[in-house]
Amino acid sequence: MSTIPAPVFYPPFNITRASHVVLTVRDLEASKAFYTRVIGLVVTEQDRDTLWLRGVEEIAHHSLVLRRSTATPVCEQVGLRVLTEEELDRAAHHFAKLGLRHAWAEVPFQGRTLRAADPMGTPLEFCARMDAVPRRLFETVDHIGGAALRFDHKQIHMADVAAACDFYTALGFRTSDYIVVGPQDDLAGVFMHRKDIPWDLVFLAGPGPRLHHFAYVTPSMIDMFRACDAAGLYKYGPSVERGPGRHGLGHVQYVYFRDPDGHRVELVLEAPHHMTDLEQQPVRWDAARRADAMDWGYPAPRCWFDEATLFEGVKPTPWTPPPGRVALEDYLASRAAE
Amino acid sequence: MSTIPAPVFYPPFNITRASHVVLTVRDLEASKAFYTRVIGLVVTEQDRDTLWLRGVEEIAHHSLVLRRSTATPVCEQVGLRVLTEEELDRAAHHFAKLGLRHAWAEVPFQGRTLRAADPMGTPLEFCARMDAVPRRLFETVDHIGGAALRFDHKQIHMADVAAACDFYTALGFRTSDYIVVGPQDDLAGVFMHRKDIPWDLVFLAGPGPRLHHFAYVTPSMIDMFRACDAAGLYKYGPSVERGPGRHGLGHVQYVYFRDPDGHRVELVLEAPHHMTDLEQQPVRWDAARRADAMDWGYPAPRCWFDEATLFEGVKPTPWTPPPGRVALEDYLASRAAE
Amino acid sequence: MSTIPAPVFYPPFNITRASHVVLTVRDLEASKAFYTRVIGLVVTEQDRDTLWLRGVEEIAHHSLVLRRSTATPVCEQVGLRVLTEEELDRAAHHFAKLGLRHAWAEVPFQGRTLRAADPMGTPLEFCARMDAVPRRLFETVDHIGGAALRFDHKQIHMADVAAACDFYTALGFRTSDYIVVGPQDDLAGVFMHRKDIPWDLVFLAGPGPRLHHFAYVTPSMIDMFRACDAAGLYKYGPSVERGPGRHGLGHVQYVYFRDPDGHRVELVLEAPHHMTDLEQQPVRWDAARRADAMDWGYPAPRCWFDEATLFEGVKPTPWTPPPGRVALEDYLASRAAE
Amino acid sequence: MSTIPAPVFYPPFNITRASHVVLTVRDLEASKAFYTRVIGLVVTEQDRDTLWLRGVEEIAHHSLVLRRSTATPVCEQVGLRVLTEEELDRAAHHFAKLGLRHAWAEVPFQGRTLRAADPMGTPLEFCARMDAVPRRLFETVDHIGGAALRFDHKQIHMADVAAACDFYTALGFRTSDYIVVGPQDDLAGVFMHRKDIPWDLVFLAGPGPRLHHFAYVTPSMIDMFRACDAAGLYKYGPSVERGPGRHGLGHVQYVYFRDPDGHRVELVLEAPHHMTDLEQQPVRWDAARRADAMDWGYPAPRCWFDEATLFEGVKPTPWTPPPGRVALEDYLASRAAE
Repeated sequence: MSTIPAPVFYPPFNITRASHVVLTVRDLEASKAFYTRVIGLVVTEQDRDTLWLRGVEEIAHHSLVLRRSTATPVCEQVGLRVLTEEELDRAAHHFAKLGLRHAWAEVPFQGRTLRAADPMGTPLEFCARMDAVPRRLFETVDHIGGAALRFDHKQIHMADVAAACDFYTALGFRTSDYIVVGPQDDLAGVFMHRKDIPWDLVFLAGPGPRLHHFAYVTPSMIDMFRACDAAGLYKYGPSVERGPGRHGLGHVQYVYFRDPDGHRVELVLEAPHHMTDLEQQPVRWDAARRADAMDWGYPAPRCWFDEATLFEGVKPTPWTPPPGRVALEDYLASRAAE
Repeated sequence: MSTIPAPVFYPPFNITRASHVVLTVRDLEASKAFYTRVIGLVVTEQDRDTLWLRGVEEIAHHSLVLRRSTATPVCEQVGLRVLTEEELDRAAHHFAKLGLRHAWAEVPFQGRTLRAADPMGTPLEFCARMDAVPRRLFETVDHIGGAALRFDHKQIHMADVAAACDFYTALGFRTSDYIVVGPQDDLAGVFMHRKDIPWDLVFLAGPGPRLHHFAYVTPSMIDMFRACDAAGLYKYGPSVERGPGRHGLGHVQYVYFRDPDGHRVELVLEAPHHMTDLEQQPVRWDAARRADAMDWGYPAPRCWFDEATLFEGVKPTPWTPPPGRVALEDYLASRAAE
Repeated sequence: MSTIPAPVFYPPFNITRASHVVLTVRDLEASKAFYTRVIGLVVTEQDRDTLWLRGVEEIAHHSLVLRRSTATPVCEQVGLRVLTEEELDRAAHHFAKLGLRHAWAEVPFQGRTLRAADPMGTPLEFCARMDAVPRRLFETVDHIGGAALRFDHKQIHMADVAAACDFYTALGFRTSDYIVVGPQDDLAGVFMHRKDIPWDLVFLAGPGPRLHHFAYVTPSMIDMFRACDAAGLYKYGPSVERGPGRHGLGHVQYVYFRDPDGHRVELVLEAPHHMTDLEQQPVRWDAARRADAMDWGYPAPRCWFDEATLFEGVKPTPWTPPPGRVALEDYLASRAAE
Repeated sequence: MSTIPAPVFYPPFNITRASHVVLTVRDLEASKAFYTRVIGLVVTEQDRDTLWLRGVEEIAHHSLVLRRSTATPVCEQVGLRVLTEEELDRAAHHFAKLGLRHAWAEVPFQGRTLRAADPMGTPLEFCARMDAVPRRLFETVDHIGGAALRFDHKQIHMADVAAACDFYTALGFRTSDYIVVGPQDDLAGVFMHRKDIPWDLVFLAGPGPRLHHFAYVTPSMIDMFRACDAAGLYKYGPSVERGPGRHGLGHVQYVYFRDPDGHRVELVLEAPHHMTDLEQQPVRWDAARRADAMDWGYPAPRCWFDEATLFEGVKPTPWTPPPGRVALEDYLASRAAE
């Protein structure tokens, strides 16, 4: 039976939050149109081959970096913030001690940056500082589409969720919720956070590591529907892959889009805050019993379960879905058979 | 090519709105729990075999009447209001002139009531008055679930939509929108209203007459999600058949539920108001081109298209869906085949 | 004691709704900026001296007409719609019979137009048709500020509210609510409607006739706050005269603005619908007891009570507020004195 | 000219957030009715003289403790959380080193608790753990009134805001915003936080230390209006002291209530999140120029500025408002004088 390791309150270095993601795309203008008009991001900077975007609440220079590439679109970096510059040195020391890949990098608009990989191969990028740019929150008259406020979290497919949970718990991440499946209560998902507002990193069982999606916070259900309307009006209608709906798991309202290259981006309302209190325990969800609990709404379609973005140069470890998995297609077929 | 007949501004009698529906159910307590907790209706009156319900804004005694029956659940009456008592006599005269079934009835909590049938057999019930009961709108602290405000419209499957449109246009109904399909532009749907706030009667092509659904107005998206949550928490999760979403056609936000007997009830936000201005023209929607226009969101599942409530004692005229119809199951299959 | 006259179900001619207002302004560009950016209206047409605006849901050519003038800003016309062209002739006949001023007028973008005055001198303009223009409802990406949907109602100061109520009841208007004040239960306000969705004309006791305000429907509280934010960002902050709040009377959420010329415009959410059912009775509100009932929020400031727009060439009948009137200034003073 | 001291990233002990407040009240049942029905808190525990309440999202045993007392209502404790038990010992060491009052206390439903006072005399209560109780977030059908999610922040009047800012900065609090006033740019307010989601402690210039208010997060504007409606319906209408409105400062939507004993409680929507990034700088607001910037809405009434809750046994240091302060009463008077 799966158990979540005890939280580590004094980790080897102080990660503060998930902060950004770097993706490659085939057509920079198409991606720019999608992310500004539908998701509501603001362009901070653009050069011939790269676009730096941020949410309207963010003063950090970028939370989404898009780089032009003719190759298969991939995720190049999973960005994380640390508290201070000296935490970066501690991070380098920690990765060195574990014998994991790590190297300093010069990255535009960021302070000193450490690139590393977790044991599964996920490319991580740590920095303590970005250039500060104006917060655009107050100009509500300029907010369009989903009016995305700020970067929230990244969900990553992992073939071995328990291993991911162990590694990131040791880095100070706390688990707010986890999903178990099958007769052995195998770990099928863990929702982890460093900041007070979940989440930062979510690991879901799947062929991985692959980036399943990244998420921005949207202010209200009305903004969520505005994003969908914008998708429809600007001919991205089929990009609305799932939702708007409400996760059984934690009652978070969501909608998932696929961007022009197939990268998946979620708009979420504020999740319930899992305060960092000592008494806070991870909440256990039994995949088989979840549907009985309080769910409504159809299950996700197969593409949502199966498709994800490759990390550059990382070959995913194969993984087979457990027998009981019910995608939308399965649900409709079983209902028709009744 | 289908055309909508010209509006009749001075009809033979003055219908003011769609007002109520009478259904049979197998378990009165189960239905009561569903309609009060999930939809948010208020119980006006209950006796051993009948339950009278209304929305929180309504002062009319009932807009939903549920009668206990062990037979197959059916719809007994499609209720319509006329302006005054004398309009009832004009209505009787009109139905007599057309040689259509009609008879006076004593109905509890209603004024003088005329029962009649349209040429397709739909059972209609006209009255000019109901008992007045307190409006419960101001006690917002008592509003639960979808906080349904008031009865809005009824959607009815008809094998011959054009015939229905002709009959109801002659009664003064105006068409705000209509859907055409196929090479001959056959009429697949008409959205008709007497009140300023659409709609009152919607006719959709299908084996009919059958009651496809009836709808209540809900105050906001938040109330709509509260209704869904209540469905989940009270074990009606699978009753959420479609949505929440936004109709491409008119951008109305909706969610459809199936009640414990399979009757379909919709919660809608306010539709765009189709004022009764002289210059107002019916809006034409081409079924085949609708998806290209500005849609997002998955199509409805097959059950939404095919299942409907029988009218008591009325055998539906068969009808075959046109070749191009795309239900959710078809959409997912075609996407998988790409 | 005031009583509301019985409704007239078959009036001399068929008014369908309050439809538009014509105002003079000193600076057309300043007014255009205010009404498009803050209220969210759409410009239909503009020439050197006149601006025609409408809500995003309206297909009628205009609901607000602004004419440039260097004189004191006034209201020139209170626009009303009738059902058909022949109702206009009946209207002319009715005003002739009553010996009231009336004359045919050529008005751009409107069908045949009858101008008339009620016995108090209010300038009325009737038409059955306007030019039809595209509904802009679906392009939600273009909606800004309050995203005003459609014209709703006009509130008019009258020195003799009972006389106004009598006159308009005879024209088929029904009263949904009325306010009484003082030991004699004098009529201090009546809320009247022809359309199903209140209201069309509201008469409030005051030196009159004067136009107190006109109102547009806004989709949600979020749009209402967006309008206020736009006011702040575009330097119209002090134009937010009252609200956002919720009327004790009917629980309608509102905010009042003063436009650059001092004309007052309200954004309201949908009011409870007062269906045209026979059993519907006017709701009586006692001004003195209203505060005890269920109110929260501060009273309106004195300017809201006292200031209003003159009708062109109409000298208001003086009127003195009853002793018990409590404006915000009075309320704060009495609280300080406790 | 005021400057905000540099942040302290490695403070002497690790405070995680503002967590609770302990107040005395005269009538426990009256307070219980107010906080459960209007604010929407949940009762965790009650004995003859004490009531422990929490927000629907909180698993910590209490965030509001009300103790019956016949004396003048006061605030007994300003509760703060530290990360672990060992941080409590570091806290005790720190207060000892500074020569400030501190003592261990046995507090029901809390872990080991340290009581202390800041240099101004504010009574602080630190703990690392409370009893865990069920999160009530998912039972949305039971949420009423403002559906308060969780404790957010406390605002405290201080005669010397700069001194408070210095003391709490040394404890690791970061300043997101500050207000300056007068020719010397005196510090009139500082908004400080330890958690990612502002705020934890706000200090405003005034006779102090006194508790100006404490705040809970509410899910949406609709819940905020539901709280106000509940206030009206349950006869707490005059308790709505200010709002609903939007702070010019940070665009946070708010409403302030006075509880039956005059303690002030705020419902707020999520504030913009001031991430703990290294580049984050305090935002300076000039009190005199704020009104010109982007404000709308009336200023707060005098009672909001002047009235606050005493801390038990702490005599406030006098303080005189600067000449330019504009309360609602002043604003209305100056407008009348124009």
